[in-house]
Amino acid sequence: MPNLPKKKPSQSVTTMTELVLPNDTNTLNNLMGGRLLHLMDIAAAITAQRHSERIVVTASVDNVSFSEPIALGDVVTITAQVTRAFNSSMEVYLEVNAENIPAGIKKTTNKAFFTFVAVDQMGKPIYVPEVEPETAEEKERFDGALRRRQLRLVLAKRMKPEEATELKLLFA
Amino acid sequence: MPNLPKKKPSQSVTTMTELVLPNDTNTLNNLMGGRLLHLMDIAAAITAQRHSERIVVTASVDNVSFSEPIALGDVVTITAQVTRAFNSSMEVYLEVNAENIPAGIKKTTNKAFFTFVAVDQMGKPIYVPEVEPETAEEKERFDGALRRRQLRLVLAKRMKPEEATELKLLFA
Amino acid sequence: MPNLPKKKPSQSVTTMTELVLPNDTNTLNNLMGGRLLHLMDIAAAITAQRHSERIVVTASVDNVSFSEPIALGDVVTITAQVTRAFNSSMEVYLEVNAENIPAGIKKTTNKAFFTFVAVDQMGKPIYVPEVEPETAEEKERFDGALRRRQLRLVLAKRMKPEEATELKLLFA
Amino acid sequence: MPNLPKKKPSQSVTTMTELVLPNDTNTLNNLMGGRLLHLMDIAAAITAQRHSERIVVTASVDNVSFSEPIALGDVVTITAQVTRAFNSSMEVYLEVNAENIPAGIKKTTNKAFFTFVAVDQMGKPIYVPEVEPETAEEKERFDGALRRRQLRLVLAKRMKPEEATELKLLFA
Amino acid sequence: MPNLPKKKPSQSVTTMTELVLPNDTNTLNNLMGGRLLHLMDIAAAITAQRHSERIVVTASVDNVSFSEPIALGDVVTITAQVTRAFNSSMEVYLEVNAENIPAGIKKTTNKAFFTFVAVDQMGKPIYVPEVEPETAEEKERFDGALRRRQLRLVLAKRMKPEEATELKLLFA
Amino acid sequence: MPNLPKKKPSQSVTTMTELVLPNDTNTLNNLMGGRLLHLMDIAAAITAQRHSERIVVTASVDNVSFSEPIALGDVVTITAQVTRAFNSSMEVYLEVNAENIPAGIKKTTNKAFFTFVAVDQMGKPIYVPEVEPETAEEKERFDGALRRRQLRLVLAKRMKPEEATELKLLFA
Repeated sequence: MPNLPKKKPSQSVTTMTELVLPNDTNTLNNLMGGRLLHLMDIAAAITAQRHSERIVVTASVDNVSFSEPIALGDVVTITAQVTRAFNSSMEVYLEVNAENIPAGIKKTTNKAFFTFVAVDQMGKPIYVPEVEPETAEEKERFDGALRRRQLRLVLAKRMKPEEATELKLLFA
Repeated sequence: MPNLPKKKPSQSVTTMTELVLPNDTNTLNNLMGGRLLHLMDIAAAITAQRHSERIVVTASVDNVSFSEPIALGDVVTITAQVTRAFNSSMEVYLEVNAENIPAGIKKTTNKAFFTFVAVDQMGKPIYVPEVEPETAEEKERFDGALRRRQLRLVLAKRMKPEEATELKLLFA
Repeated sequence: MPNLPKKKPSQSVTTMTELVLPNDTNTLNNLMGGRLLHLMDIAAAITAQRHSERIVVTASVDNVSFSEPIALGDVVTITAQVTRAFNSSMEVYLEVNAENIPAGIKKTTNKAFFTFVAVDQMGKPIYVPEVEPETAEEKERFDGALRRRQLRLVLAKRMKPEEATELKLLFA
Repeated sequence: MPNLPKKKPSQSVTTMTELVLPNDTNTLNNLMGGRLLHLMDIAAAITAQRHSERIVVTASVDNVSFSEPIALGDVVTITAQVTRAFNSSMEVYLEVNAENIPAGIKKTTNKAFFTFVAVDQMGKPIYVPEVEPETAEEKERFDGALRRRQLRLVLAKRMKPEEATELKLLFA
Repeated sequence: MPNLPKKKPSQSVTTMTELVLPNDTNTLNNLMGGRLLHLMDIAAAITAQRHSERIVVTASVDNVSFSEPIALGDVVTITAQVTRAFNSSMEVYLEVNAENIPAGIKKTTNKAFFTFVAVDQMGKPIYVPEVEPETAEEKERFDGALRRRQLRLVLAKRMKPEEATELKLLFA
Repeated sequence: MPNLPKKKPSQSVTTMTELVLPNDTNTLNNLMGGRLLHLMDIAAAITAQRHSERIVVTASVDNVSFSEPIALGDVVTITAQVTRAFNSSMEVYLEVNAENIPAGIKKTTNKAFFTFVAVDQMGKPIYVPEVEPETAEEKERFDGALRRRQLRLVLAKRMKPEEATELKLLFA
């Protein structure tokens, strides 16, 4: 394991701004959930690339819920920042905002966590720098990353529920 | 709550077959995770439409993990079938297969659950038929739906962990 | 000519399901004919790939007529199955269905035959397995393939009309 | 039937020039047949619109064969001109040329006939001007249109082969 | 002319981050100039929308030069901020940066000015807030806007060169 | 500097015809400026390729103004012809026409100059043939090219305003 200097979330934060176009929408003229996930994946991948300075591939997408419709013509802003790294993997936190500018409406529509693995040109995993959180929110997300990671491993059947110590606390 | 006749998963199953094209791929010439999620969302939405015979909107995407790369030129087959309905929402099970046909390689790359809500033209939720599972696998997914729903509600902070009785059993 | 085992149409059948999106439509909000041909070509190519287990290229598209409009938001289902093989070429039969699910309308909109050639990495034609039809419909399409092939050759000016024995019977 | 003045093919001819982009290509880096048909349909529809000064919809595509590959980066030029009108329908002749400019190679790759129907805002067919051919080639295509129309009707099972007088001559 | 409160450039600044995908590139695998202009237009339009809180349409694009290639897989970051408003029109300054992250290369590739007009639902021009520059750079761009506006008017033949007092100073 | 034979603008003229599709449009259902620039860049690049018989890259786009909206469903025709060459660079003149065919409306919406550089496979600039204008308009554009080139160099800060002799005449 190489001795890479730690990096702060602010060093790799990514802001992506997009206009909702006709082909992105469903019968109700709202942005399709899958299209938004596509944009979120690209924004998060750029952040993971910036943190690791490597090629990255998507490893997993945590539960994402869609409670607010985003309309045709709205402006979507996605901010992506790394929360914590584990060897070759990085968890990225995403926040999605939607604006109907002429109507003066702005709302946060989604929050999600995507995980990426840094790889070399052959696709082999490779170590990434650790994350050094700065703000209170970054620290909270850094701490929660362990719990989310256990949930991912349990859901992927790569960890037994009874070994997920962080998760068990939650349900105690 | 209307008295709609129950429907079987086989009545709304959807098969989507796609070719991985250059613009779907990353630097390693593999399908981007977000693009796959986009396709999965469309396949699952068609299944939910077929089950409910209504307009549907994506409500949530459960944890999806990407462990196998899918290459440029591969054929991707997505099958989507409804597992269980709760009032106006439907859980859809997705299985993704990828084939490199000239190389004779075929593999299951992803399994996931997406949830949809049936709505009327105004976007208001509307009751959908209950699901009547037939095969052993369909019954297992029908039973597991309750546990996955609790997890979704806990993660969306709409249920307290200590009230998630099905989930607690898992960690006991 | 290699001694490849025969294959049944059911071994390579392909189902493609697509949602009609805004950019696929014309001024009347109906699916453009050319866009449908594009989807049919991909579905048929996948079937031909699966039958031959080779790279394939489109050789010809037989007469396709468009008598039923398919609307924005409709679900299009294309099924493609191989009918007969001639050395390195395969004829694929396509059937297109369109559903307006909330309105409860489902109709068969198109039937067509596309022909593909299996090629190696250099683009050279290469032998493919013969087709062994099973059902009555598959046998009828197998038999008709000879007549359609003569029509293709006559139209491409690679056969003289008076040599097209199968076609001449039709007009006798 | 209204007394519309005849129009010449040169009054509605359309030239479409496109660059073959990565997403248009197959595994061999050649333009996919279906993508070319999509472009041809748009070029032909513009010609039919110009001839009729109406909204038009694709009615049918005659047999198209693909004998020459068109490579990534090639320039594709499609010319479309109306050959003959029958009440509300127009036959359009298409010629496709492909150029690899840095290599100094230019070739005619496809010739085809597409048919369109002019419609009003409700989608009802509406009369179009007759075509007045000028050059020898235009006159030959004008004359052949009758035979091609009979073939289309026979293939669509809307005319009995024995009634197709023009076609029968061909096989006599 | 309404008495709208002035707004600062920082209140409407937009950051757009994009990955260069295969279909965006030319034969040399570099981003096509026209595709970059397309992205710049969207980023600038969002900024103009945010400043005016209105629908906006592109009025003009000033001279843009492309001296640095941007490669497939690079990350493009476009920042757009308003420089000055004239009645219903707004000038937007754009800066484009390209990063090859795994190679550790980051460069500024383009600087440009786009102009937008705010319109109502009928497309009629409508007054927008004036711009109040804060930083030295913003003030310099605010001052230069007058000269660039005269150049635009002269080039569009809506002002005689001899009346372009600001421009004439430049060549004196 | 090689002794390449001069070529006429008519030898490389390009006509591109496109239909305005939903995804090309803004909230007012009009073609977005950036999308039009994208199409113009491709049309102009094909002309520059044809003149030089080389790979070309966009060097600059001169001021383009957008005074006329182009609506969804309109037919856009772009003609591109080379005006003058300077060593390895070529200036291309573009004229954009838009037709609403069913309404019988046709208008010239944009005129612009794009500049391209011919390069070899390594991206190195390479000499191109000189342009020999034929018509009065071509000669006028040939002469004006010198003035536009000076303006480009001044705007790119590669020439001092006081050295731009052609431009100075304009403001005298």
